[in-house]
Amino acid sequence: MPTDRAQPAFVLIRPQMGENIGAAARAMWNFGLDRMRIVAPRDGWPNPSAVAMASGAGRLLDEAEVAGDVAEGLADRTYVYATTARPRELTKPVFSPEAAMRDAAARIARGEKVAVMFGPERSGMENADIAHAQAIITVPVNPDFPSLNLAQCVLLVGYEWRRACEEVTDVVVQGQRTDVAEHRDIEALARHYEDRLEEAGFFYPDHKAENMKVNLRNLWARMPLTRADVQMLHGALRQLLRGKTK
Amino acid sequence: MPTDRAQPAFVLIRPQMGENIGAAARAMWNFGLDRMRIVAPRDGWPNPSAVAMASGAGRLLDEAEVAGDVAEGLADRTYVYATTARPRELTKPVFSPEAAMRDAAARIARGEKVAVMFGPERSGMENADIAHAQAIITVPVNPDFPSLNLAQCVLLVGYEWRRACEEVTDVVVQGQRTDVAEHRDIEALARHYEDRLEEAGFFYPDHKAENMKVNLRNLWARMPLTRADVQMLHGALRQLLRGKTK
Repeated sequence: MPTDRAQPAFVLIRPQMGENIGAAARAMWNFGLDRMRIVAPRDGWPNPSAVAMASGAGRLLDEAEVAGDVAEGLADRTYVYATTARPRELTKPVFSPEAAMRDAAARIARGEKVAVMFGPERSGMENADIAHAQAIITVPVNPDFPSLNLAQCVLLVGYEWRRACEEVTDVVVQGQRTDVAEHRDIEALARHYEDRLEEAGFFYPDHKAENMKVNLRNLWARMPLTRADVQMLHGALRQLLRGKTK
Repeated sequence: MPTDRAQPAFVLIRPQMGENIGAAARAMWNFGLDRMRIVAPRDGWPNPSAVAMASGAGRLLDEAEVAGDVAEGLADRTYVYATTARPRELTKPVFSPEAAMRDAAARIARGEKVAVMFGPERSGMENADIAHAQAIITVPVNPDFPSLNLAQCVLLVGYEWRRACEEVTDVVVQGQRTDVAEHRDIEALARHYEDRLEEAGFFYPDHKAENMKVNLRNLWARMPLTRADVQMLHGALRQLLRGKTK
């Protein structure tokens, strides 16, 4: 059963190798997409090579809709993007993957039915295929080496879909919400080290001692220490000095 | 000859299949990245399967730097991200690929030397590997199907690198001559403390020793230490132990 989450259909146009269809299914499901359509697959359908490659995402192949031509594959869609490697001489808006999937998410939220087309492995789509699309998606690849394969292109667009429709948190600092050491803990740690280093004669010569202490204080202050770190550093210092003769 | 564009090194940790190394090289070059490092490749180096797969990006393999262990592979770096599929119980910032590569671009503009680590295909990185990193990158995949392969992970981070550095090319941060310690400095410092603490019997009981060492490594990796800090911490440890009887 497909997920009930509204999403674009990913439409593979005349795919050639079964392995690539399977890899595309995996790439879709990596980002929670499970509406695959396949237009005129070269080797017919179903395709055992696709199934072998799709391991873990085989359901997408079982549920894939197969169409004889592009028009049939897109029949119920209201807005279609075509992915192309190179700019075409076509008067259509050209989106980055990110902008396209943001646009798609907004359209789907308004009740539109969206598709993204992906061309055949070797040749890419023909202009006649792209003519079915309202817009183009171009991945900003290295112009000296623009050769993305089918599953990679699916992966990047799927990745942007997930980013567009979810609040993806940019930065999470693990463990620091509850664990972060309080100032009093840092102060006690700093004093522990300062006292033992003082006894060990570290702050020498005298005229540099004050500056050295300030540097050490600054060091502790800059460190993002947790309570556990502080405990470990206290324990390390005690253990280092165990059995030391003055 | 590598491009002269400042960029992060992508460091493959103990990669297994040559084909995957080749595919990773292609994915890097798709987004204009050409500084590959390889740590302890399972099947040795050079690897004919990697070359066969890399077609068009073979130069990256010819120029790849091969290291025996993680510390050697990261020796000259000042800031390291580790890509992981699942959250780890480690106190490090966790970045989305986008936020990470924006952060990396800003660091590189300030003259820092950045690396991104990618784990072995089957198992991913061990916590001891990740302990070398200052931050984590996690791709927001479908939790029901999080299985990205090595080249896909490289592709997504490379894609975000290209997006980030296209955005920031106009931004030049000047006057911030950083004195950030290199990875080799941190490594030497970590080892110095680990060795002395080992001798002092700090890592006790035995069944907790490995975990304690990883925690300590993580602590050093998270600290924004300068070269001067590192010198001070070496000096402090030496001074603390001066005259100690075993």
